[in-house]
Amino acid sequence: MTDRAATTDHPLARATALTWRDGRWIGHTSKDYWGFVGPYGGATAAVMLRAALDHPDRIGDPLALTVNYCAPIDEGDFQIVARAARTNRSTQHWTIELFQSEGDILATATVVFARRRAGFIHAPLTMPQAPPPAEVAPHAVSPGPLWLRQYEMRFVAGQPALGQVPHATPQPADTLLWMRDAVPRPLDSVSLAAMSDAFIGRVFQVLGVLVPFGTVSLTTYFHGAAADHTSEDGWILGHADAAVFRDGFGDQTARLWSSDGRLLVSSVQTTYFRDPNPEAAA
Amino acid sequence: MTDRAATTDHPLARATALTWRDGRWIGHTSKDYWGFVGPYGGATAAVMLRAALDHPDRIGDPLALTVNYCAPIDEGDFQIVARAARTNRSTQHWTIELFQSEGDILATATVVFARRRAGFIHAPLTMPQAPPPAEVAPHAVSPGPLWLRQYEMRFVAGQPALGQVPHATPQPADTLLWMRDAVPRPLDSVSLAAMSDAFIGRVFQVLGVLVPFGTVSLTTYFHGAAADHTSEDGWILGHADAAVFRDGFGDQTARLWSSDGRLLVSSVQTTYFRDPNPEAAA
Repeated sequence: MTDRAATTDHPLARATALTWRDGRWIGHTSKDYWGFVGPYGGATAAVMLRAALDHPDRIGDPLALTVNYCAPIDEGDFQIVARAARTNRSTQHWTIELFQSEGDILATATVVFARRRAGFIHAPLTMPQAPPPAEVAPHAVSPGPLWLRQYEMRFVAGQPALGQVPHATPQPADTLLWMRDAVPRPLDSVSLAAMSDAFIGRVFQVLGVLVPFGTVSLTTYFHGAAADHTSEDGWILGHADAAVFRDGFGDQTARLWSSDGRLLVSSVQTTYFRDPNPEAAA
Repeated sequence: MTDRAATTDHPLARATALTWRDGRWIGHTSKDYWGFVGPYGGATAAVMLRAALDHPDRIGDPLALTVNYCAPIDEGDFQIVARAARTNRSTQHWTIELFQSEGDILATATVVFARRRAGFIHAPLTMPQAPPPAEVAPHAVSPGPLWLRQYEMRFVAGQPALGQVPHATPQPADTLLWMRDAVPRPLDSVSLAAMSDAFIGRVFQVLGVLVPFGTVSLTTYFHGAAADHTSEDGWILGHADAAVFRDGFGDQTARLWSSDGRLLVSSVQTTYFRDPNPEAAA
């Protein structure tokens, strides 16, 4: 258990801290979660979720979150307007916008919350086999953006190996790793939202080089109530993959498992990437 | 090739027909695509997409669509307000709302469009093996909602078998089938958006019975430009699966392949279901 004071002081708490002013939230970007050209997409997802989660009108627990990354967010303050578009008895739908200058929207999101009723549980998909985290060596991904330092990562398969020249033959797109917050913090929907984006672009994995890249849209589902967002030893087994890269856009899938084998989160994203060798395609 | 007159008269064209009036679209629900308690979710997804696609401000081709089903839509007229939240050089982000009475939002959506630049193509995921559609028997799913009649379905695996009593042991959640519009129509992003929801609830498959069920949120990615939305013989190989059902909500994944093996669309949804046996869980 982490005590409450420590939690409030966590880098993720700072990156997602929001102040209510005149009917909207004010937040501030965090250097701790800086990406290539702006905040780490997972941090933006987490703060968009928090804008609805911490709103006094909210009912239920997070079920689905979609964040659309419209344009880079500059370092500094940002504003978030969150509106409950519809409140039902057991579900609630939110529409959210983030901006830094009035009318200049940088991210949009929808969030669904749900009150669950305990009942039928069945998991057709089982957790991938992996040795326990204690038996897997830590690995710092390099080169990479600053936000990667916020996670301790132990790669079971698909450890990134980034060089200067693209592979002649595309390499496998999948990665299996143990991960947790580098600064310990209890899991919750906010940290799971952030972690759902904590896999480097699959195109880097496939090509073996960094290319200009960004998440365009991210959708994350939470498979359980708030009380289910636990992992006994704090580790999450993350599995990322991709199905197709085509003409500047690719997809990416991610699943986050608790160490006792429950699927906590599944996530998909569509990504932009710059062609590593545009002449060859012309 | 279907001629243009026939296309305009297609049931999907009627179900997604929109008239512009006073800065918003007016549509009308279709009996052809009726579901259990309102329009088929795929038809709603298609008309939400069309509201942005047919808007004069739209640039690029559909990349990502998220539709949130907030409340049942009654038979009759509906209105859609679609707004370009952000237009970049090569991407555009839309926010969309559907309602029948002012302020009473029944569905929300976000859509991303993108201009693609031809280049790197790589598909780590290959199409599942299946005999050609001519070698697979047609099958009408029964009992089921009206919209199912809009699709010709030939099940390769996981043909639905629905009875009166839930299976004692949950059955596999996946289905592989060939499908196409029952009334022939060229593929496009609108019909692919509709088809991305054309798999009966995975909970029915697992339990072998119909239970109260609904899609809560649907996200569909389009893996190619408009010109890539083709299948030589008109057939789509659809693959649906689910990872977890827990306390009234489950997930569902779907992939749509062209008959020549290109992944055209991938889709995820989170669904609500009524517990078939709530006493047992108490």
